[in-house]
Amino acid sequence: MCTGKTIRIVVWNEFQHEKKNDKIAAIYPNGMHGAIAAALKQNAAFEVSTATLDMPGCGLGGDILANTDVLIWWGHMAHGQVPDELVQKIYDRVQEGMGLIALHSSHASKIFTKLCGSNSVNLKWRESDDKEILWVVDPTHPITVGLGKDHIILEREETYGEHFDIPAPDELIFVSWFTGGEVFRSGFTYKRGLGKIFYFRPGHETFPTYHNPAVLQVIENAVHWCAESAFVKPVYGHYKEPLVK
Amino acid sequence: MCTGKTIRIVVWNEFQHEKKNDKIAAIYPNGMHGAIAAALKQNAAFEVSTATLDMPGCGLGGDILANTDVLIWWGHMAHGQVPDELVQKIYDRVQEGMGLIALHSSHASKIFTKLCGSNSVNLKWRESDDKEILWVVDPTHPITVGLGKDHIILEREETYGEHFDIPAPDELIFVSWFTGGEVFRSGFTYKRGLGKIFYFRPGHETFPTYHNPAVLQVIENAVHWCAESAFVKPVYGHYKEPLVK
Amino acid sequence: MCTGKTIRIVVWNEFQHEKKNDKIAAIYPNGMHGAIAAALKQNAAFEVSTATLDMPGCGLGGDILANTDVLIWWGHMAHGQVPDELVQKIYDRVQEGMGLIALHSSHASKIFTKLCGSNSVNLKWRESDDKEILWVVDPTHPITVGLGKDHIILEREETYGEHFDIPAPDELIFVSWFTGGEVFRSGFTYKRGLGKIFYFRPGHETFPTYHNPAVLQVIENAVHWCAESAFVKPVYGHYKEPLVK
Amino acid sequence: MCTGKTIRIVVWNEFQHEKKNDKIAAIYPNGMHGAIAAALKQNAAFEVSTATLDMPGCGLGGDILANTDVLIWWGHMAHGQVPDELVQKIYDRVQEGMGLIALHSSHASKIFTKLCGSNSVNLKWRESDDKEILWVVDPTHPITVGLGKDHIILEREETYGEHFDIPAPDELIFVSWFTGGEVFRSGFTYKRGLGKIFYFRPGHETFPTYHNPAVLQVIENAVHWCAESAFVKPVYGHYKEPLVK
Repeated sequence: MCTGKTIRIVVWNEFQHEKKNDKIAAIYPNGMHGAIAAALKQNAAFEVSTATLDMPGCGLGGDILANTDVLIWWGHMAHGQVPDELVQKIYDRVQEGMGLIALHSSHASKIFTKLCGSNSVNLKWRESDDKEILWVVDPTHPITVGLGKDHIILEREETYGEHFDIPAPDELIFVSWFTGGEVFRSGFTYKRGLGKIFYFRPGHETFPTYHNPAVLQVIENAVHWCAESAFVKPVYGHYKEPLVK
Repeated sequence: MCTGKTIRIVVWNEFQHEKKNDKIAAIYPNGMHGAIAAALKQNAAFEVSTATLDMPGCGLGGDILANTDVLIWWGHMAHGQVPDELVQKIYDRVQEGMGLIALHSSHASKIFTKLCGSNSVNLKWRESDDKEILWVVDPTHPITVGLGKDHIILEREETYGEHFDIPAPDELIFVSWFTGGEVFRSGFTYKRGLGKIFYFRPGHETFPTYHNPAVLQVIENAVHWCAESAFVKPVYGHYKEPLVK
Repeated sequence: MCTGKTIRIVVWNEFQHEKKNDKIAAIYPNGMHGAIAAALKQNAAFEVSTATLDMPGCGLGGDILANTDVLIWWGHMAHGQVPDELVQKIYDRVQEGMGLIALHSSHASKIFTKLCGSNSVNLKWRESDDKEILWVVDPTHPITVGLGKDHIILEREETYGEHFDIPAPDELIFVSWFTGGEVFRSGFTYKRGLGKIFYFRPGHETFPTYHNPAVLQVIENAVHWCAESAFVKPVYGHYKEPLVK
Repeated sequence: MCTGKTIRIVVWNEFQHEKKNDKIAAIYPNGMHGAIAAALKQNAAFEVSTATLDMPGCGLGGDILANTDVLIWWGHMAHGQVPDELVQKIYDRVQEGMGLIALHSSHASKIFTKLCGSNSVNLKWRESDDKEILWVVDPTHPITVGLGKDHIILEREETYGEHFDIPAPDELIFVSWFTGGEVFRSGFTYKRGLGKIFYFRPGHETFPTYHNPAVLQVIENAVHWCAESAFVKPVYGHYKEPLVK
């Protein structure tokens, strides 16, 4: 629906690989967050900023979260360095209605596993430059709009394989194929409190995945989907006067 | 999302009760379809027409269905008079991407049961002027937008009761309470082919339900939701050249 | 649970390919139904019979369906030859509580599409001797019991690919990988009325798939799962005396 | 399925209300855990023990959890006194495959909210001796076996009302009606890791709910359902040799 409202987005990245590895830095000179943010900024309805692990407060201090509609998260080697207090703040903000897009290895981030209610959100993985083909299994979902084709091909990606230890998704949108024989539920949604959550698999740091127009289209669509939250404000707690007496 | 596209809606009503019963005619001088259409016409993005059973071709002949984005259906005493050929055409058009909103006793219409894949889509029912309270169980669903409150009260309605013999909904949005002790899954969604389907319980012919602003808001929201279909056009059939050789 | 009850199974096969093609007959000298039935007969709790298209009444006349707890269905080239009246009888019996296991190309059978409420239940397909790997995505589902491993490998199978035009499954249990780049939701469940339905993809006629112990284990598990139906008998229809007055 | 295996059950109760309030003690002289355990002990396939908050280690120390197949949990006024370390141990054990049945006010227990991934698992509540009617909405689910009727009537219970802030259930089995106009999703399932979870609403301490045969039947059924877990042991982690090279 046309709300005309600006959507306030923060793209968070641990931003470690890019600083430690020249090849990765060459792919993402402004970090993966920079690449994603640059793409989203093309949309005039979006107000986009970025935040990283080594900023004070991980770049999410003060009232930043309170003023964020959708948080995009990329983490991997530094999951453990994100303070528990911050994780709790993000978690609380999701329950209030902030959307969350968890990318790639963020499946194992503190925030995503906490929202899943699953310990490990475990999976199989290999780094072997496999081809990934993401097939659309829900072609009328708004997160697929504009893709045109019923699949996305990524010539080289890290491989993730089932079993993926997640709660049954509310909506399963993409399933991936990999050269080595693996499949993976690579795009799906949950709701927690008044917040909407989208997990999207692609985006290993060693590949230019966040320069791929179809991948960026999915992320942009997911922002729209996640931002449409908190329509009804339920009343909770002690409810003295019943509707019917 | 803001597509700016006009949504073409047909409100179909068997339009029998209104012509046979003066009290019902007094509530709906232009039929229930007329009341619903009048409300939807307030939205400049909607192009709204109506159709009834006793029109030639049930008002859905020629290329009308092909040019309809969302079909709203109200049927009850005359389910059996809707020709099977027309039911098949509507069914085919839903698979292509037309949205369908099935209201009240349309749970037992030929088109809804056929789309459910269930024989009877059976339920319990009583006509005893019970109060109905529809509780929102999915407060972030776009179909609840604008309601504000987490419930809708209808002072008098026909009672439907569980067990409601439907396939497990994709999304359960409303659950109803009735004075006599019944509950009912009264708002939920399915997808079939590229078409989206919303069932909404309220609207017995003897009550002014389709003059209720909250009920009309839900129907308007559902039009938006149902019209957002067919984003990706999957390729089906014999697939000679695999993507990977 | 230990009910100790005998489960009455009919394995239905159109039984056309085996009679027309010597190579297929060599793989299945007693038909695919014969191979499946022979395996199921090893279970002392099962009473197993078979039925085929060219038997009088397609082998399902008289009170056979009324005395069947689980119907296993394999059809392909002769979907159109199954009489609509018989399809309606099977459909009605599923609503009453009979389990249905639809195998492989039965996705396009009259009975399965009718229960899906989808027109075509369309998909992509290739015959190119691809390898199929079925990955378990729901490792605690009873249909996976006894498999041990989290995947089943079939060295050569026909390829089916997404998008598979089905209603969102109630439970998704297997996802398949194929050599040519395809994935497929290859094992999943629905409920219709009091009946339970399991679709299982493997079993192209030109391959010895129904001699594979893991495939047969899944079918045996599915019989147990499908037969556990109709626990509560809901009351439907006009309900004069409400529980609360 | 007939596994013939003994199911090891621990019924855990905070056991506070019964010791502080004579009226409650009169209803449950051996505690609510005692009433539930006594009923379950009638089943020869069950090995039943109990544990309470004021026992050393909350009665769940040593290798007790490791030797428990299904944990039944009742908590209310003392949620905060359950040590976080114990909650983590239970959580880990659920991921490994232990079943969990969360009763009534345990919706707000540390273990249930942690498994939900929702902050509050909030709801509306009133203590006004309302009647509760639990309607079966999934009549073929094994958790309803033996009920016969499609509803359970509890003459007096505490009222819980929607919106209930839970993740969308995997399976919704019961919906409750209350005198004051509320409805509530009162029986539903989740899976987390290899563990199965059933939430069941009834059981306020001031009412003899755990002496009701239908309520006890549901709990017994849920034990069977929850204990059927961990069929396939997925392989996780670095996966050096792909199945296809």
